Amino acid sequence: MNTHEFRTHAHELADWMADYLERVGEYPVTPPVRPGDIKKQLPVAAPENPESFASIFQDFREVILPGMTHWQHPGFFAYFPANNSEPSILAEMLTATLGAQCMVWLSSPAAEELEERMMEWLRDMLGLPGPFTGVIQDTASSSTLVAILTAREHRSGYEINRRGFGPADRFRVYTSTQGHSSIDKDVKIAGIGIENLVKVEVDETFAMIPSRLEMAIQEDITEGFVPLCVISTIGTTSSTAIDPIGEISRICRKYSVWHHVDASYAGTALILPEIRWMSDGVEGADSFVFNPHKWMFTNFDCSAYFVKDKQALINTFSILPEYLKTPEDKLVNNYRDWGIPLGRRFRALKLWFVIRTYGISGLQEKIRSHIQYGQWLKQEMHNTPGVELMAPVPLNLVCFRFNSNKQTTEKEVDATNARILEALNRSGKVFLTQTKLNHKVVLRFVAGQTHTSLEDIQNGWRFIYETGRSMCNEQ
Amino acid sequence: MNTHEFRTHAHELADWMADYLERVGEYPVTPPVRPGDIKKQLPVAAPENPESFASIFQDFREVILPGMTHWQHPGFFAYFPANNSEPSILAEMLTATLGAQCMVWLSSPAAEELEERMMEWLRDMLGLPGPFTGVIQDTASSSTLVAILTAREHRSGYEINRRGFGPADRFRVYTSTQGHSSIDKDVKIAGIGIENLVKVEVDETFAMIPSRLEMAIQEDITEGFVPLCVISTIGTTSSTAIDPIGEISRICRKYSVWHHVDASYAGTALILPEIRWMSDGVEGADSFVFNPHKWMFTNFDCSAYFVKDKQALINTFSILPEYLKTPEDKLVNNYRDWGIPLGRRFRALKLWFVIRTYGISGLQEKIRSHIQYGQWLKQEMHNTPGVELMAPVPLNLVCFRFNSNKQTTEKEVDATNARILEALNRSGKVFLTQTKLNHKVVLRFVAGQTHTSLEDIQNGWRFIYETGRSMCNEQ
Repeated sequence: MNTHEFRTHAHELADWMADYLERVGEYPVTPPVRPGDIKKQLPVAAPENPESFASIFQDFREVILPGMTHWQHPGFFAYFPANNSEPSILAEMLTATLGAQCMVWLSSPAAEELEERMMEWLRDMLGLPGPFTGVIQDTASSSTLVAILTAREHRSGYEINRRGFGPADRFRVYTSTQGHSSIDKDVKIAGIGIENLVKVEVDETFAMIPSRLEMAIQEDITEGFVPLCVISTIGTTSSTAIDPIGEISRICRKYSVWHHVDASYAGTALILPEIRWMSDGVEGADSFVFNPHKWMFTNFDCSAYFVKDKQALINTFSILPEYLKTPEDKLVNNYRDWGIPLGRRFRALKLWFVIRTYGISGLQEKIRSHIQYGQWLKQEMHNTPGVELMAPVPLNLVCFRFNSNKQTTEKEVDATNARILEALNRSGKVFLTQTKLNHKVVLRFVAGQTHTSLEDIQNGWRFIYETGRSMCNEQ
Repeated sequence: MNTHEFRTHAHELADWMADYLERVGEYPVTPPVRPGDIKKQLPVAAPENPESFASIFQDFREVILPGMTHWQHPGFFAYFPANNSEPSILAEMLTATLGAQCMVWLSSPAAEELEERMMEWLRDMLGLPGPFTGVIQDTASSSTLVAILTAREHRSGYEINRRGFGPADRFRVYTSTQGHSSIDKDVKIAGIGIENLVKVEVDETFAMIPSRLEMAIQEDITEGFVPLCVISTIGTTSSTAIDPIGEISRICRKYSVWHHVDASYAGTALILPEIRWMSDGVEGADSFVFNPHKWMFTNFDCSAYFVKDKQALINTFSILPEYLKTPEDKLVNNYRDWGIPLGRRFRALKLWFVIRTYGISGLQEKIRSHIQYGQWLKQEMHNTPGVELMAPVPLNLVCFRFNSNKQTTEKEVDATNARILEALNRSGKVFLTQTKLNHKVVLRFVAGQTHTSLEDIQNGWRFIYETGRSMCNEQ
């Protein structure tokens, strides 16, 4: 394909892309396919000879698209969103075209400096403290791993990096029972072991109970463990519970424990002054992560990781082989030393496009409306007989279940709700995911799509309610 | 920005993108900027109110672009390429628009199944053994970390994941003195410690000496260490040296050591039957990585990781919280359990577009031509007085230095070559990077850009030679 043909096809795609964004609601939100349905349509071997773009693009539309879950669909209320926006897509077009590697300053000077500036913008927009320095990681899983590894090395005097674990390195890591599953994964990767991840009890709002954290730390010290790191959460995945950051910070400082704040979803809401209470005391934390790729209209992947002691981060990850030395090494940020992978995409560009296109006020307006939808849903469910709210709704995630009087045992209620979820997700109209809270099956409804309107939320809820009610009545 | 405006801007960008690809050679390959030059042009605070796309795009062209290193420039001979292609960019446009998350089958069924198929295509195109199963990771740094962690867990019976390191887990990892710096980083992250990374001596071609590897393993066993993993390299970063994979595999099997093959750059060349000798014996290896994002015309990031014992990989990384359970879990690949991050981009699409657009024959033709350019350069340098080849040239990376008779000490030769490199890279015409081989400063010339022609290579070499010669004469 030469650049002349590329120009033609890029214009074709520009129209298709705009059409897709206009019509995404017309697709089934999850596809009516079974495992293997797509793969069997794909030849088992790569083609020997070139194929035309027309046939490739046709297969994209006819084979791939009917097998996609449409994450930007107005009926997508599942997981947390990985929301997207027009300026973010435009930036990704440029990023793909430049094809630049952003591992060291010299390999992409403007990308490195734009990343510095964007992380300062984000820090200030969220009201994070000035000493925090930011860097873009791929996901919150990686950001939290980076935090745990930095804590590990900082605590060991960078000795585990040098000699591996020794008998004295009996670390303990703490999070609430609602902490994200990536923390489990991260303590394994870091060599600490899942048995040394202490899940601290939560209160009735599913927030960590600080006194229980302190008790666990004290017990561990008595037993000869080294309390290493606490991971608190602003907006847990199950129910957007909000841990008391300030109290946890105070405990961490008292016992010299690293405090990492996982705000991967809800962090975006900190751009609203009226929501800033969620992060009270964050100045006592050591590191903080939130994902613009979840709720800030920025294409996946883009995880914003902030750390107070930048040098501890760099000491943990720095490598300097001969072939990566540059004359500017002492003057610049070489982000290869700020995380796990050496190679890095130019991800700051989309942040710049998104923040400037919306402006802070535009971002605030959208986030505010999403929270209002969440509160509308909460009120609506509260007023609806047979529907039970299962957790507080501080933001825009509503946890609920159907529970009409006919059912008696919890097991039956669980089974009914699981069946309702399955039916909903087979409909192609809405997509929700489940969790468990207090051992009960709970449905999650997240109102955080970029272009979602109150009408979308109302239509979604009406369909969910009617489906659920009729299935309850069939019992 | 609404979709109507998006359509207009996407068309504007389509033209700009095609123009850029046509004219990339007109930019200075590295920009004439100093640290801080770009950042000071960027406002210290995010804008309160929305800005127009026109002004954002103008700033992109006037502030960002003049500060970029142009990785697709015909004078880019540095590092290894992160090459790109028209079909890959087109696929990235679609990926960005769909904004899909590919963490589990249900979250993007077609993406998961296309990834399965693409990894089968790549496995077969490279002649890798049938039992190898593939998954896309972001970079080779991460792929090799995944390999080391899988080796660690497989060896410990998944006990380190459970309880952390114990006193018996005194692991040793092996690579050659030419192994990539990410291996250093990875053994640190995995908790093994850099002191337990054994750098095995190389022969005069910079390839690992298997007998030295076996000696090191035996010594370590005697001293009570547990030999865990050998990382051999097909195409080292310094000089594309090729370790003897078959012999290393035999040693690994003898001592029950995991054998991971890092072919991150040179792996692409295995699509040429006449180059397949490089991987002789790979069927004895446990895992293998190569990066289509380096030399296979596929946008960064896209690292293809293959493992023989798929279940060992999954056992190492699997997590299954309530909110990620899906009805299909037993029937499908949930790639969140195949690596570090939970969230995953839809990266299989660009592989599909690239492989089909070129066809195997088209890819082979390009790779063959790049190798021919490397061989042309080698011959040319060999015939040029005052230029010294510093390593064998099996592929398309040529390691050389200027060494006219006037200089006497090695230190002076090093200093001259460092000055020449600086002058070349200040020119904006070519971009090269350095390494050290046998403690000597060496310049690296990689001929692997997607659209590079023999003429580009000849022009590049002429400019390099004239600059170097005149600087040597000035001594």
